[in-house]
Amino acid sequence: MNSTNITSVTHGVPAQSRWKKHGHSGGVLWFTGLSGSGKSTLAMALEDALFAKDYEVFTLDGDNLRHGLNANLGFSAEDRSENIRRAGEVAALFASSGIIVLAAFISPYARDRDQVRQIIGNNFHEVYLDPGLDSCEARDPKGLYKKARAGEIPDFTGISAPYEAPINPELRIDTHKQAIDESIDQLIAYTGRAFRLP
Amino acid sequence: MNSTNITSVTHGVPAQSRWKKHGHSGGVLWFTGLSGSGKSTLAMALEDALFAKDYEVFTLDGDNLRHGLNANLGFSAEDRSENIRRAGEVAALFASSGIIVLAAFISPYARDRDQVRQIIGNNFHEVYLDPGLDSCEARDPKGLYKKARAGEIPDFTGISAPYEAPINPELRIDTHKQAIDESIDQLIAYTGRAFRLP
Repeated sequence: MNSTNITSVTHGVPAQSRWKKHGHSGGVLWFTGLSGSGKSTLAMALEDALFAKDYEVFTLDGDNLRHGLNANLGFSAEDRSENIRRAGEVAALFASSGIIVLAAFISPYARDRDQVRQIIGNNFHEVYLDPGLDSCEARDPKGLYKKARAGEIPDFTGISAPYEAPINPELRIDTHKQAIDESIDQLIAYTGRAFRLP
Repeated sequence: MNSTNITSVTHGVPAQSRWKKHGHSGGVLWFTGLSGSGKSTLAMALEDALFAKDYEVFTLDGDNLRHGLNANLGFSAEDRSENIRRAGEVAALFASSGIIVLAAFISPYARDRDQVRQIIGNNFHEVYLDPGLDSCEARDPKGLYKKARAGEIPDFTGISAPYEAPINPELRIDTHKQAIDESIDQLIAYTGRAFRLP
């Protein structure tokens, strides 16, 4: 830590009071997977579905954060780590406000995801979207794989930069085989269990 | 921006739906002032009071963020600016989730606060806590002024680093003359007006 003479301040409202008000605990569903694996699509559809069911829910999207909080970071391994560290810290803040965070980040390094798991604590749930690289590249919704294959994008995950697949995620979804609606139903059921109040 | 090939994603839930659910709009009360001016104390007491009145509210505290998101920043002018930029971006995320953010940051540079105002947009309200330097130093709740006068803390705001007072804040509170309860009543009334739905 670069700061000294810093004293933590206790919140006016305890987490349990927030949970009670919301009817569920705060926490994080962390979507990881290759570009084109469906992270943002599933997260935003799930946000909509959970909000309709009266959850307090908010999506943190990797691309959106790179326009704001993480706009001063690039795609080197070091910058990617800092990108995920900051995202994890923000997700932790949202979780401690009693919100369920849907975090959609490629987050290719296992070490970085494990660091986020440590920051968040108990209510961290890793959701690995795994349609396979071929499927992602065939879909190529933003035309990025084509550019990456042509050498126009350096350090592109799955092509010219590594993706370290989760070994033991809380949930693994094959978004190639399974339709979006089915995945949303699966995620709603999982959310109900994962953030249920004791 | 250091990132390219980034596409913004639209949220599943529009901001207005969140506002309607919460009964108020999202936004930011930004507390600025010297160390010991009462920022954290007022913010945490206000968090408690507003939560009891059924607001969705969360405090972002400078010291707390320096243990997490901003742990890799020090107190140089450059690091202070980045500290406030990140805090502003996080406050903006919370505001767009429909929450009222109570942000407690010394934020000594007018330029940095103005940047946050631009990031947040309409629902940014600057609250200047101004008991005067003498009063802050006399209270010295953490013993920091004493250390700073002894030269043990470099770049200490008000002593060896500048504080640029807000010229035209939305609210200015003399926390030396006014009791905490009175300030909280004033802030509750202000919040009711500032985040009322149209």
